[in-house]
Amino acid sequence: MSAYADFPTSDRCLVLGAGGFIGTNLCLALRARGVPVTGFGRSARPAVLDDIDWVRGSLDATPWDRRLERLVGGHAHVFDLIGAGLPNSSNDNPAQIVADAVPAKVRLLEACRVAGVRRYLFASSGGTVYGVTGTQPVAEDTPTEPISAYGIGKLVVEKYLSLYRHLYGLESRTLRIANAYGPFQESRNGQGLVAALLRRLLADQPVEIWGDGRIVRDYIHIDDVVDAMLACLVHEGPGRVFNVGSGTGRSVAEVIADAARVTGRSPRLIRREPRGADVPVNILDSSRLMREAQWAPRTSWEAGLASTAEWIARSG
Amino acid sequence: MSAYADFPTSDRCLVLGAGGFIGTNLCLALRARGVPVTGFGRSARPAVLDDIDWVRGSLDATPWDRRLERLVGGHAHVFDLIGAGLPNSSNDNPAQIVADAVPAKVRLLEACRVAGVRRYLFASSGGTVYGVTGTQPVAEDTPTEPISAYGIGKLVVEKYLSLYRHLYGLESRTLRIANAYGPFQESRNGQGLVAALLRRLLADQPVEIWGDGRIVRDYIHIDDVVDAMLACLVHEGPGRVFNVGSGTGRSVAEVIADAARVTGRSPRLIRREPRGADVPVNILDSSRLMREAQWAPRTSWEAGLASTAEWIARSG
Repeated sequence: MSAYADFPTSDRCLVLGAGGFIGTNLCLALRARGVPVTGFGRSARPAVLDDIDWVRGSLDATPWDRRLERLVGGHAHVFDLIGAGLPNSSNDNPAQIVADAVPAKVRLLEACRVAGVRRYLFASSGGTVYGVTGTQPVAEDTPTEPISAYGIGKLVVEKYLSLYRHLYGLESRTLRIANAYGPFQESRNGQGLVAALLRRLLADQPVEIWGDGRIVRDYIHIDDVVDAMLACLVHEGPGRVFNVGSGTGRSVAEVIADAARVTGRSPRLIRREPRGADVPVNILDSSRLMREAQWAPRTSWEAGLASTAEWIARSG
Repeated sequence: MSAYADFPTSDRCLVLGAGGFIGTNLCLALRARGVPVTGFGRSARPAVLDDIDWVRGSLDATPWDRRLERLVGGHAHVFDLIGAGLPNSSNDNPAQIVADAVPAKVRLLEACRVAGVRRYLFASSGGTVYGVTGTQPVAEDTPTEPISAYGIGKLVVEKYLSLYRHLYGLESRTLRIANAYGPFQESRNGQGLVAALLRRLLADQPVEIWGDGRIVRDYIHIDDVVDAMLACLVHEGPGRVFNVGSGTGRSVAEVIADAARVTGRSPRLIRREPRGADVPVNILDSSRLMREAQWAPRTSWEAGLASTAEWIARSG
């Protein structure tokens, strides 16, 4: 049971991107705490969320009219989990993310301001906003030099949140999330390494890796990410931007070895060329969130990997 | 005569925004050093630049085709002095700068990459990218929290320059310029305080000020800004982002008093409401540029203000 089991809000929350990996887990956690939730997503409501309110749609396709305000209206809190493509493919057309996705987000902020939303919670990307940094783990005040347009897009939304806080008092919290893993994670296009690995191992399929397996990431269980989101919903300290990571780095090679051990399968590797948008090492220092919100990761890597493998084996 | 009188390049430079305040001064300085220059601007070539090559046009209106590559082609260096509106009015439609101006800049970077441009020099804004900071003067590694969409737009271009350097090796230098003043400065919409003040005092017109006159800015003479640009063109140190300021803060009230003294006129003030995008204090620490490029401001405030007043009196 979560540290936030006695979660003190009965205000309605809007979860944007509710059908995705983080969104599904967050909606389940809010529902379990009796918080009224509206989910918004591109697809039909997932079966597992069949008892929450659902609005099907796409931010990109929403024109600059009153529809956004109507979507947002009546919600005290908005969780923005809407991504915009993938880090690597974002560099193929680097202007697109600022031309399309960011203005859509700014219009959303404008709607939140008009609708009187009390707090906007933004899922940023701890793995891309910093870029290639000298020291690890990285704290929130480390200079941000993304090496993907995707990372720039996330950073720009952070800056607009700061602007809207300053100009209009729209409260927000940014969560720079590390590599989350756990139930409901998709595994497409080389993203979601843990889910992809476990699925392929359990299906006796070969595993693709980009580069030499030495890329280091910070893997954090989705339950801990959801805990961080709930913590940020009620947080009252000075911070507005928070890293959410385990603080431990693991190489792709280590993750493969651990996944092989947990599943009892031997991996067959297909090696691909390294990708330009992959930083060599990314480990997050989340001590700000620990200090200001009494958050702490509570799922160990070993237990999280094992339970995720079980979940995948069970759910197919 | 400038510290960069023996400027060591005969490579052709493209100056974007050449008809503006900084652009006109830069073109004159490059021409005086025998550097071949192409000016690009929205207006017809100013008379003072009648012996440089000129292309009339607008980045916004340039579609995503080969025209940008043809504009950029044949130039070793590109100076990007193209602004995008004004800090205060940018907040009226905060999505616009990322929706329009930033993608245009990214397309320009793409053209520079294809055309093999050796160095891109970007006029960023030391007065807006930092936002409201705790300590003064601000150095380049201070967190950037703009309180105007204009400042966000500048910051996003900086991030794209960093991305293009990482992905494609396109070299660049960013100059975060303080409040420049001097010959050829326009004075519209409350921008360009020194020029506006001197013109109004010399014409015996009342002077508008926003707020209580306690807003502090860092005023730097345009000759020192041009020196910094030339220094960045040949700079080979580790820095890529440089503050360009005097390091001295002056309040609006002080500037008015000094301008009144220099012109021998008594100001009649019209007080306006403070503007949301004005940070209370902004003073730049430019020691990185001093250290890495042996740059130093060489025009004192007193001498610069007096010569600017003379220039305005002479040129009308």
